[in-house]
Amino acid sequence: MNVHPTALVHENARLDPSVVVGPFTVIHDNVVIEAGTVIGSHCELGISTALGDGSPLRIGAGSTIRSHSVFYESSVFGAGLVTGHRVTVRERTQAGDGFQIGTLGDIQGHCRIGTHVRFHSNVHVGQQTQIDDFVWVFPFVVFTNDPHPPSAVVQGIRVRKFAAIATMSTVLPGVTIGEDALIGAGSVVTRDVGDGRIVTGSPASDRGEVGKIKLQDGSGRAAYPWRKHFHRGYPEDLVAGWLSALD
Amino acid sequence: MNVHPTALVHENARLDPSVVVGPFTVIHDNVVIEAGTVIGSHCELGISTALGDGSPLRIGAGSTIRSHSVFYESSVFGAGLVTGHRVTVRERTQAGDGFQIGTLGDIQGHCRIGTHVRFHSNVHVGQQTQIDDFVWVFPFVVFTNDPHPPSAVVQGIRVRKFAAIATMSTVLPGVTIGEDALIGAGSVVTRDVGDGRIVTGSPASDRGEVGKIKLQDGSGRAAYPWRKHFHRGYPEDLVAGWLSALD
Amino acid sequence: MNVHPTALVHENARLDPSVVVGPFTVIHDNVVIEAGTVIGSHCELGISTALGDGSPLRIGAGSTIRSHSVFYESSVFGAGLVTGHRVTVRERTQAGDGFQIGTLGDIQGHCRIGTHVRFHSNVHVGQQTQIDDFVWVFPFVVFTNDPHPPSAVVQGIRVRKFAAIATMSTVLPGVTIGEDALIGAGSVVTRDVGDGRIVTGSPASDRGEVGKIKLQDGSGRAAYPWRKHFHRGYPEDLVAGWLSALD
Repeated sequence: MNVHPTALVHENARLDPSVVVGPFTVIHDNVVIEAGTVIGSHCELGISTALGDGSPLRIGAGSTIRSHSVFYESSVFGAGLVTGHRVTVRERTQAGDGFQIGTLGDIQGHCRIGTHVRFHSNVHVGQQTQIDDFVWVFPFVVFTNDPHPPSAVVQGIRVRKFAAIATMSTVLPGVTIGEDALIGAGSVVTRDVGDGRIVTGSPASDRGEVGKIKLQDGSGRAAYPWRKHFHRGYPEDLVAGWLSALD
Repeated sequence: MNVHPTALVHENARLDPSVVVGPFTVIHDNVVIEAGTVIGSHCELGISTALGDGSPLRIGAGSTIRSHSVFYESSVFGAGLVTGHRVTVRERTQAGDGFQIGTLGDIQGHCRIGTHVRFHSNVHVGQQTQIDDFVWVFPFVVFTNDPHPPSAVVQGIRVRKFAAIATMSTVLPGVTIGEDALIGAGSVVTRDVGDGRIVTGSPASDRGEVGKIKLQDGSGRAAYPWRKHFHRGYPEDLVAGWLSALD
Repeated sequence: MNVHPTALVHENARLDPSVVVGPFTVIHDNVVIEAGTVIGSHCELGISTALGDGSPLRIGAGSTIRSHSVFYESSVFGAGLVTGHRVTVRERTQAGDGFQIGTLGDIQGHCRIGTHVRFHSNVHVGQQTQIDDFVWVFPFVVFTNDPHPPSAVVQGIRVRKFAAIATMSTVLPGVTIGEDALIGAGSVVTRDVGDGRIVTGSPASDRGEVGKIKLQDGSGRAAYPWRKHFHRGYPEDLVAGWLSALD
């Protein structure tokens, strides 16, 4: 085990011997970390909480958690989790393989994230949010959950697969964003968005089909669905499946 | 005193013997921390600054400061301060009992906060902001202070009691937000908001009385004033006083 | 060298003997730090990356890097860099003298910053952004770069000298913001902004010449160009040059 001598790893934490732990990182007892994972400096993993269910924090194989990040117990991540710096993930977050959380991401827990979901920097996810596979979320997007704050009512958001939510957008409680939808930058999404629709503005309104946006690479191709042209970092067999389904 | 052996607590810092200090936390000399307070890992408290007045950082009894947080000297907090992770609080911040600051909160100092004020994640408070008792501020709200940036003119904001400011709103310099007012998500508040009014939009405009919003819990009750139905975490006698005043 | 005994400074890092390094800070091997610089606690400097060019992280003389900040290798900063807490700067960022980055700033790398550029808190800078001398950027501003996210197309933003971008504004890919322009709070800037123009709104639209805004200090003077009245922290000879050029 490549644990830096200044790191504090609790004797009951279950780390694969291949796990790397950076300096000044604290790992509490109720943590399971699989093979090949690298944890940066100044992190704290497995914070205990009365809001959890007693289950451990589980980090899948081949993950990278960058410095100054904080994870609570009672969350589960698939293989290949990659975080930026200073992310915060509260209890009862479930995510599939290949989840990426950018720097400053703030996940409030009690939410479900599919496979290969990618958050850019500073995304805020309220409790009860459900994000399906292959969704993209860009910087400073906020998923809310209280329809009349403050209250005890929680209305989670649902984002369907392949949707993309651009920078500085706010999604209001209970909204469903459809498959392959595109939310333009700076939008306030107050109602459901249909599959393959573009919405922009505050409050966001419908601007048509995503297929009308052209790729600005000189090719003349459509920019959406994005999985026709953008494959960076996805497994090859996954991409092959996407492309054959689109044919 | 439950100071972790890796923590660095200056010998002149005045911590009650019951205070808990987490690993890798630095506490400078000009700090007073009252009984029952818990300080997380990787914090730095009491940073000295020429912008202070020489007085200590004072943290009231029974407080919780979560990991990676930074506080300067010359600020005073009442009992029961609770912070998320990585909050930053500059000098000359004064806050009453029961102040909550969510993860990533950034308080620029020289401001006054009442009792039982609650900030959710990533709230930014410019200098000279004054926030009265029982106010709620939701994620990614910014309180500004310069009417024509950059300049040396500072026009602080005033938020009156029980007001709620929803996610991703920006409040412009010198604005007063009235008692029990509600600022909708994504608003840019450019002028004063009256007591009990709803405003939304960019620039924000008046949408009527808060009383017209119904609680989405099937009860048919009004959602505002919120203290009629939402009491989580407030002292019982405080709530009793609220309710009798509303009768 | 005033390196705190808990700091971890690699033996190949090249720090001037006058450099101060705070507790629990990690400095990797590929780092050059010039005289008089002060590094706070809990930082990590010089993170190696396959996205760099092998060159070191260079920090100019007389800089201040506050706590919990993270810098990668292969970036260069002039003299007098000042950061807030928890800034993140990725590889291949180039900045001139006097750069200020507020707390929570997130610079994605591969960008160019002029001299005496000032970012307030929580500014996000996408790759390929170019910011000229003396620009001001206020809290929660995001510079994007992908015209149809997600894609492999990168269209960097250009901000010309003396421009000011107010709080919570989003600048869309490929936009040029003119010299002395003012972007109002909460704007979504979707097209180029001319020299000395004001734009506000979402999408941002033209509101006239900056010269029409009056200083709210009772003087009756114009608030823009701001360098006529605001000089805090700039070198005297620089200010003298500004003023003589404006006469």
